[in-house]
Amino acid sequence: MVESYHIDFEPLGRRGEALPGTTLLAAAQAAGVGLASVCGGIGTCEECRLRLVTGRLTPLTLVEEAVFTQAEREAGFRLACQSEPLSDVKVDIPPESLTAAQRLQIEGQESGVALSPAVRALDLELAAPSLNDLRSDLSRLRDALAEQGVIQAVLVPPLLACLSEILRQQAWHARLVLHGDQIVAILPPGCPIYGLAVDIGTTKLAAYLVDLQNGKTVAKSGAMNPQIAYGEDAISRIAYAGHEGEGAKRLQSVLVESLNQLLASMAAEARVNPAQVVDGVLVGNTAMHHLFAGLPVRQLGQAPFVASVSESLTLPVHELGLKLAPGALVYLPPNIAGFVGADHISMLVATGAWKSPRNVIALDIGTNTEISLIASGRISSCSCASGPAFEGAHIRDGMRAAPGAIERARWNEGKILWQSIEDQPPVGICGSGILDIVAALLDGDMLKPTGALKIDSGSEYELVAASQTGHGRAVVVTRKDIHEIQLAKSAIRSGIEVLLQNAGLRHEAIDEFIVAGAFGTYLDVRSAVRVGMFPPLPMERFQQVGNAAGVGAKQMLLSTEQRQEAEEIASRIHYIELTAQSGFTPLFMKYLSFSGD
Amino acid sequence: MVESYHIDFEPLGRRGEALPGTTLLAAAQAAGVGLASVCGGIGTCEECRLRLVTGRLTPLTLVEEAVFTQAEREAGFRLACQSEPLSDVKVDIPPESLTAAQRLQIEGQESGVALSPAVRALDLELAAPSLNDLRSDLSRLRDALAEQGVIQAVLVPPLLACLSEILRQQAWHARLVLHGDQIVAILPPGCPIYGLAVDIGTTKLAAYLVDLQNGKTVAKSGAMNPQIAYGEDAISRIAYAGHEGEGAKRLQSVLVESLNQLLASMAAEARVNPAQVVDGVLVGNTAMHHLFAGLPVRQLGQAPFVASVSESLTLPVHELGLKLAPGALVYLPPNIAGFVGADHISMLVATGAWKSPRNVIALDIGTNTEISLIASGRISSCSCASGPAFEGAHIRDGMRAAPGAIERARWNEGKILWQSIEDQPPVGICGSGILDIVAALLDGDMLKPTGALKIDSGSEYELVAASQTGHGRAVVVTRKDIHEIQLAKSAIRSGIEVLLQNAGLRHEAIDEFIVAGAFGTYLDVRSAVRVGMFPPLPMERFQQVGNAAGVGAKQMLLSTEQRQEAEEIASRIHYIELTAQSGFTPLFMKYLSFSGD
Repeated sequence: MVESYHIDFEPLGRRGEALPGTTLLAAAQAAGVGLASVCGGIGTCEECRLRLVTGRLTPLTLVEEAVFTQAEREAGFRLACQSEPLSDVKVDIPPESLTAAQRLQIEGQESGVALSPAVRALDLELAAPSLNDLRSDLSRLRDALAEQGVIQAVLVPPLLACLSEILRQQAWHARLVLHGDQIVAILPPGCPIYGLAVDIGTTKLAAYLVDLQNGKTVAKSGAMNPQIAYGEDAISRIAYAGHEGEGAKRLQSVLVESLNQLLASMAAEARVNPAQVVDGVLVGNTAMHHLFAGLPVRQLGQAPFVASVSESLTLPVHELGLKLAPGALVYLPPNIAGFVGADHISMLVATGAWKSPRNVIALDIGTNTEISLIASGRISSCSCASGPAFEGAHIRDGMRAAPGAIERARWNEGKILWQSIEDQPPVGICGSGILDIVAALLDGDMLKPTGALKIDSGSEYELVAASQTGHGRAVVVTRKDIHEIQLAKSAIRSGIEVLLQNAGLRHEAIDEFIVAGAFGTYLDVRSAVRVGMFPPLPMERFQQVGNAAGVGAKQMLLSTEQRQEAEEIASRIHYIELTAQSGFTPLFMKYLSFSGD
Repeated sequence: MVESYHIDFEPLGRRGEALPGTTLLAAAQAAGVGLASVCGGIGTCEECRLRLVTGRLTPLTLVEEAVFTQAEREAGFRLACQSEPLSDVKVDIPPESLTAAQRLQIEGQESGVALSPAVRALDLELAAPSLNDLRSDLSRLRDALAEQGVIQAVLVPPLLACLSEILRQQAWHARLVLHGDQIVAILPPGCPIYGLAVDIGTTKLAAYLVDLQNGKTVAKSGAMNPQIAYGEDAISRIAYAGHEGEGAKRLQSVLVESLNQLLASMAAEARVNPAQVVDGVLVGNTAMHHLFAGLPVRQLGQAPFVASVSESLTLPVHELGLKLAPGALVYLPPNIAGFVGADHISMLVATGAWKSPRNVIALDIGTNTEISLIASGRISSCSCASGPAFEGAHIRDGMRAAPGAIERARWNEGKILWQSIEDQPPVGICGSGILDIVAALLDGDMLKPTGALKIDSGSEYELVAASQTGHGRAVVVTRKDIHEIQLAKSAIRSGIEVLLQNAGLRHEAIDEFIVAGAFGTYLDVRSAVRVGMFPPLPMERFQQVGNAAGVGAKQMLLSTEQRQEAEEIASRIHYIELTAQSGFTPLFMKYLSFSGD
């Protein structure tokens, strides 16, 4: 009987089996681990990299020896398609080797911040009222709190309204949850408490339910931002909010409604009563922040694009309509400017980039791309209008990252090899795919510096013939698609270069280049460098950190120190308005072309 | 040509004319001044007392010489029916000589407190945003405030929501109104600011609109408490709030709706925009306070009748639905117990009684009568269930104080003389009338100590024959009516005596006896003493102060020191629960009878 080996795929925590003589790639596919592999396992795409942690594998092949540096080899790097297990093994898969769907799964890992939440719980036993003790219920509570050293205790109206009933129901025993000097919840003694962290993206919502006693994420959930029905991007929603009578109110209420649904489903999954959810941190770009908080947005859509409120806000949930504990307060970190929001600050908190003694670029790619440069202890930031191309919009066969979307591509022997999400028959191209395709066209010398296709047949490159697609139509890349990518990559690169110029640095001086956000997780950094969107730095300087804004929100939920960091970042950031920079337009013109660097 | 004299009736400010030879009573009646006069001007009821301030009158008649003490004569006291002007004269009419309707008019006079309102206004000029100055609107505001020395400034959500628009509308000029560190309103520069004071009675609402710059009352208005539709007294409303699904919410919303109407009509009258009304003080008994603030009331209806909240509250109007400036905060003074409310504290603030070095009784008569005794720097209070008899309820021909209600009565030569409100044909008896009638029956020796009528014809005394009334039915007083008054007067007197006993005092030691509230203003103190409701003290020790709760609310609106006094009173009052006092029942039995003192 031939025994199979156990394979541990980390950090997914997935386990698989491999018969001797099968590759790790095959074992991964059998175990449902989405390893990237554009070439189909022939060792040419070099995407299925992983690192051996324990156990033994077959020796390095010639292909692998060509692919890896000495340092990488010593670190245990291998190609999954080239290696077979010789024992039980544990391997570590870097995020860039995973397909999109699984990369999403590993994000939002527990962050290691020391617990110091904004709320604290206190179990109290009160004396019942009698003819000899006629103190009011609130006085009774305050007196018991005073015995515990709590002198100030404020109750918001919704808690005042139920105080008397709860105390009687719980027979004068209660766990009080305090947020500063506010009582935010009155629960049964010993009842566990939770917090809600949310990243309100223009397109997507990501929510986490976190145990405030141990910092563990007990549930997470995502949804589309329902405001999409009223405008795809922030600018069109600002217009809707301003022109329609109750527009802003409707945008707020559909968002709150979705957040309540996310919370309810997470609470059900984790068997938590929403009344136990006593704190919250919500981050988003400035427009999402304003629409959520009920702040006016008209001035965000008009030069000079100032925020109504850039300071952090602590808002009572009952006024927002959020269905946490009715007395809870939620924290909204500060914004920097009309187009650099609390989500960017949250990302800086999560990565710790802002405290780095080195030169760091940290950016979050979206319809607007926010970029920070940390250099010599100074933080400067800008926002560039990179457009919706990476979300699949304005691209002829563009689509969101969904099954059947081409998400990876590589030039190989005269043609473009591609991989689709979940290996479904292709029906379109998502953001990381179009970036890879343009890079591949450059690798194949198929593009002029202007972006024009070097093909006789006209202005389209056929990527997949109609016979091979899922919908019977060819998947193509057009000259206009390429132009959209040129606009996007030039906006981002010009923003980076303006920040560098203002700091008197050249891009070679960047020690660390942090790419955050969903698209930033999926994109192939090599392609981003190849098209000139990112400066040509050694690969090891790049770091793809996933939804760092969501992670930052969780950290701020767990730690008031992290909130203080957010405040400090906001107070220290020097915001640079690109449109007011004379150097911006020449840079933008330069980086439109593919002959850049 | 015979010239008439000018007569000034103070403090009403009404002017009249009198031909030589006409009495001041006739002149008052001609000028529409409601002077009390049960005997119809024959000098026997002694009710039309007034004081000559300037000018000359005919000499004292023999009747007057019998009525007034030497001191009163020297002070200028006269009976209006006995004196005729010999020149232009100015007279001062004590409240007890006025009929009900006019007594109501003079209450709510300007109080003399030094102005130190809880809010302050600050005019600011801000720099407009530009590409070189991208501060958020709130930062811009905060920076301008910091220049004025204001470091902390919090905006509530409804103000945050309109901040950007207001600043742009007003071209970056604004008058900020601050309440502590909260911004409560953003108005045009120099805009005057106002406050709202309200006494929320179980039966009536009294509201005042006050100029916060000079302390002047610019409008006042009253209305029935609309909660009456859901229960006549506090106990039945507590039951309604508890048993009906949305009962408490409905009671709150009808009340808030009425308060908004009162405010709107006062604002219109004074040509004030409700957005200029930036502060408020509302007082009421504990049940009214709880129902208004959205606090639970169930425990107020169950032994041991404790308040949910006895501490003072500062609540945002936007959460209550009150239509003042949307960021305004209203102050609700502390309560003492389930049946001694903020209105009683407000009365103690207004009268200053609590600071007196003398022995003072201060009480507010209603369905519940709250009594405080100030003695040796100690304040003790109790509440007694005096019932609704003085509001005309539970009395066979009882009615509210309205035209046609018998409001005064006196025993004279074998029968009861009476006076009705506005001299309309009588249709019933209001509270002050039934008290006078019982006193008159005692004066005429018509009652046994038990309260039984000494008449052969049965258990009714016919006060007005059917032929003389406005509705063609006789107005009578029954044995049961007298019993209701016995219950009420005994409850009040027993409460007073318990407080005195606890302080080791006899009633002779009372230096000052303050009677507050609407009924307390209308009642004839002599009758209250005659029936044994008040202890037999020299008349000059009694003081009828009108709606002192409303006056106290105005004072607290104008002065934070007065709010601190309210807090201090609440912290110092020693509340005595009568039902827990062994001495109460014997006293109550004793004072039920008319053979008391």
